[in-house]
Formats: sequence, structure tokens, C-alpha cells
Amino acid sequence: MSSLIECVPNFSEGRRPEVLEEIVRAVSQIEGVTLLDHSRDETHNRSVVTFAGAAASVVKAATAAVGRALELIDMEQHEGAHPRIGAVDVMPFVPLGGTRLEECVDLARRFGEQIAQRFELPVYLYGDAALRPERRRLADVRRGQYEGLRDDIGKDPDRAPDFGPLRLHPRGGAIAVGARKPLIAFNVNLATDDLALAKRIAHAVRESSGGLPGIQAMGVLLDNPGQPRMAQVSMNLVDWERTGIPRVVREIRRMALENGTDVDHCELIGLAPTGALLEVAADTLGLRGFSPDQALELRLARDR
Amino acid sequence: MSSLIECVPNFSEGRRPEVLEEIVRAVSQIEGVTLLDHSRDETHNRSVVTFAGAAASVVKAATAAVGRALELIDMEQHEGAHPRIGAVDVMPFVPLGGTRLEECVDLARRFGEQIAQRFELPVYLYGDAALRPERRRLADVRRGQYEGLRDDIGKDPDRAPDFGPLRLHPRGGAIAVGARKPLIAFNVNLATDDLALAKRIAHAVRESSGGLPGIQAMGVLLDNPGQPRMAQVSMNLVDWERTGIPRVVREIRRMALENGTDVDHCELIGLAPTGALLEVAADTLGLRGFSPDQALELRLARDR
Repeated sequence: MSSLIECVPNFSEGRRPEVLEEIVRAVSQIEGVTLLDHSRDETHNRSVVTFAGAAASVVKAATAAVGRALELIDMEQHEGAHPRIGAVDVMPFVPLGGTRLEECVDLARRFGEQIAQRFELPVYLYGDAALRPERRRLADVRRGQYEGLRDDIGKDPDRAPDFGPLRLHPRGGAIAVGARKPLIAFNVNLATDDLALAKRIAHAVRESSGGLPGIQAMGVLLDNPGQPRMAQVSMNLVDWERTGIPRVVREIRRMALENGTDVDHCELIGLAPTGALLEVAADTLGLRGFSPDQALELRLARDR
Repeated sequence: MSSLIECVPNFSEGRRPEVLEEIVRAVSQIEGVTLLDHSRDETHNRSVVTFAGAAASVVKAATAAVGRALELIDMEQHEGAHPRIGAVDVMPFVPLGGTRLEECVDLARRFGEQIAQRFELPVYLYGDAALRPERRRLADVRRGQYEGLRDDIGKDPDRAPDFGPLRLHPRGGAIAVGARKPLIAFNVNLATDDLALAKRIAHAVRESSGGLPGIQAMGVLLDNPGQPRMAQVSMNLVDWERTGIPRVVREIRRMALENGTDVDHCELIGLAPTGALLEVAADTLGLRGFSPDQALELRLARDR
């Protein structure tokens, strides 16, 4: 089958539900695209749409979404808590199933070139699709935000887009187009309300402080009415094929036991690649010679 | 999307590879069908083909397979170790993904009626598709085999087919068409060569001796050159939504520990429903509020 790709564009509009509805409609109308999720945040004045399908369908839907957003959102009127550079602020392509990240990198670059031309929109490539190493991190691409970029884009060669004009789109600003691996939002709840312990564990496992590769983690205290207070290690696994759920849970459990407590239960937030969950099954059972192809529906999805 | 259905026909020919090739070709030519497996056994003189797809495609492929097998296999010439009543001996339909067993029951009955008419072939409905309770078990449908049924079909009202003529097809005999849940072939290898213990555990867990619902089990000794001898509990899980992998493995492990040993590792033979493996992940992690819909590719396969 053709490659399965997920796309998770973020739009700089979270207060007018009708705008998100129009964008979602534009995406859903494309044959072969499955809408997986959409959500709207008033504080950030920002929306996120998640959809997936074969490469060609995803590109059509992404293009339709950009077109609609440029009609409906005016960055000159936009304010919100979340950093942003444009009406379609960021458009990451994510490999699913047997798709390779490289395919998403190629796709992001081709897509970026196409929409730059079609909409006269400056395009910055980020993440694994970045052409300049200093643009890998989204925060660096977004430096100065819409307002800062409006002034710098034509003057500072370091702020010139990878594709498109040396000036912002009059209403839509600019867009960051990228490729990244799928991200797993995963929480481990400890059988204690010791927030300091959760913070120590988060510090020990997260990559930025020398822990496990691809782990982002923080310690938080869950304090919901009617429920026991519980310390939680809240994580993103941004490269589950390097550090998967079994490894990070084992490490957290080891530290919890050393400190006289244990893991109480875990939470998976939203969607995760099936392979990351099958890895847990294979690890637990000590399955010899297991392949995700032995999962019937997964095998079928791959072959169709 | 339309319902996803697996079909696992067994053919009374395992010695002429060209016959299996012809049948596989007939199946593969149908648009929308995925060939999952095919295997041939010389001793049993029998072959098994596994394919899947949407209901309409699977029916087309199953019909094509019956047509080809009736041309190529002559039951008057057939002998082999495995009990059988016809050229296409048995044709089970199995629900995959979100498909309900009832859909396969309906499909099996409609399919049985159609091929009975088209090929003048006597059809016996078995398994969950059985119209007579005494035909649920395949062994009962196959009583007396091809040769016995040839004499009884027109004389004994209890042996009259559910659809089709009161005489066997001149070359193809009869066919058992049915519906059943997916079956998981799963082995638990113990950290011991104590065959008697494996047999005691198998006896304790299998349904037929009062154990867990939907578990078929036997104890065997693995004695492969160059590998340590190992006692194994070899199982079929025929109703994993009633008794899944976590429960039966926990029970086997408990008995192993009571007897001074442990589970060494497990083996999954062939394919298993993804949901049965996700249950292991959810059980291990104590995932709260987990749904198989959180597995990305599975969710997409369902929605497409």
C-alpha cells in the first residue's frame, strides 16, 4: 500500500468555533483522509487538527486546510498565549505504520515548496525536514513570533524562508512545515503523593538532564477532588523506537521501589503507534521472534 | 468501513503444489482481498489458505476458490490422514477488527446457500453458523467422512445437508461452511523439562477438564538438538475475549511458581487479533480507561 502519514497542523484561531469547523470540513472532504481529532483552545487562541491517510490524500487535505485558513484567519488581528508565526502556524508530517521518517521529510519539503508558490506564503522547514540545522527546533524558527518576523524576514538573511517570498503573507504570515516521529503522551502515576520524588524521577529519566534518549518528563501532583492525591511522572516519548514504554516504566518502577513506593497505574493520553503498545506485550510475555506483522489488523492495514 | 472478515478454507489436496497454487491464484485475483497465509501438508494431503478483506470481496474470493477446487480435486481419488467430507472440506468465516461474529454467521449462511445452488454442492452449516445444534462441532458434521456421507446423505434425514442436493457433488463431495471467533495459537515454555508438570498445568487450564473458558491445552516436551529440553503448555485460545492471554499466562505462572519453577518465555504462532495483544499491554501497565482505538493504525483501519 502507499505510505500512511499523519498530519497535525496547528491554526492560530481558537475562539471562533466556526473557523475550526470550516477547516475540519475542508480536510474531511478529501477522499482517503481520516480525521482523527480536532481541538480548540481559547486561552492560546489556537486549534489543532489531526488527520491521516496515504501521502497523496494527506497532501491534498493539508493544502485545502492552508487555503481555507488563509481565507479565514487574519494574523494582524490575532493575539494569544502561544507563540506563533502564521495562520497555519505549524504543519508536521508524521510516519505511521511501516512508513519511514525519510518519506515524511521528502513530503514536507515538496509540500512546503508547493504551498509557498501557490499561496505566496513564506515556508520554514523545521524538525527532521529542516534544511538548516539551526531550524530543527520549532522555538528557534518562531523566535520574535509573527510580529518580529514581519520586520526581519526581508532584512536578515538568517530569517529568510526556505521557500516563498521575502515578505509575510498579508493575512497569513508564515508557516513552519516539518517532519517528526510520532509522539506518545504517557503518564506514570506513583502510589504516593510525594511530589519531590516524582520530580527526582522525572529529572533522572529525561534526556535533557542526561537520562533516556527521547524522553521528556516532569513531576506533577494530581490533586483532584474525590480522588487520592497522587504524584505523577508526566512524559512525552518522542522517539519510542529508541526508548519505548517498557524501558522507561521499568526505570521509573525501579526508582519508586528504591524509595519505598511503587507504580500505581499508567495513562496513555490520546493516540499511540500500535507498535509501541505491541512492544509492551512482547516484553511482558518474553515473546520469542515476535513481529508486529503477527497482529492481524496491523498486517492487513499494511498490505491493503 | 465495511466489515473486515477472515476466511480460512481447508482443501483436500496437499501433495500437488500446482493445485494449491491455482487456488491461491484464484483468491489473490479478487480486488480487495489480502492473502495472509497458505500451507500444504503431504501426510494429511490437505492445504489451508488464509485471506481477509471486506465481506463482499471475501465472498467473491471464497466462491472462486470453491469453483477452482471443484475443477482440480477429485474426492474419489483422495486419501489422507485428516478427516474430510469434500474437496473444499471446511470454510470458516472469522470476524476481525470491529466486526461482530453475527455478521460472519449471516455471511456463512448466505454464502452456503449461494454455492449450494451454483455448484450443486451439499452444504453443512457448522460452528456458530449451525442451524442444527448437533452440527456445531465439526467432528460431528464429518462423521463417517466422505465415504460414509456418500451412502447416508440421501437415506438418513439426520445427514441431509442444510442447502443443496441430497447427493454428493460427483467430484467435490460436500462442504462444511461456518463461522467462528478468531483463534490464537499460543505456547508458554516453562523453565523446566518436567513434562508431567506441563501436562498437569494443561489439564488445569483447559476448558474440557473444568479449567478456563475457551482454552484448549496440552503439555509437550520440546527436545530440539542444540537447545535445552523444555516443557511447554501448548494452547489454542478460541475465545480470547472471554479468556485472554494475560489471564491464562497468570494462571500458568502461578502453578509454575507453586512447583518451584517459572515461565521462561512465550510464543505466538502465526497471527493474532491485535486487540488480544493490546490487552496484554493494558494489563501490564494497569492502563486506566484504555481503548484499542488509541492504537493509531488500528483506529485508522477501522475508520477507512
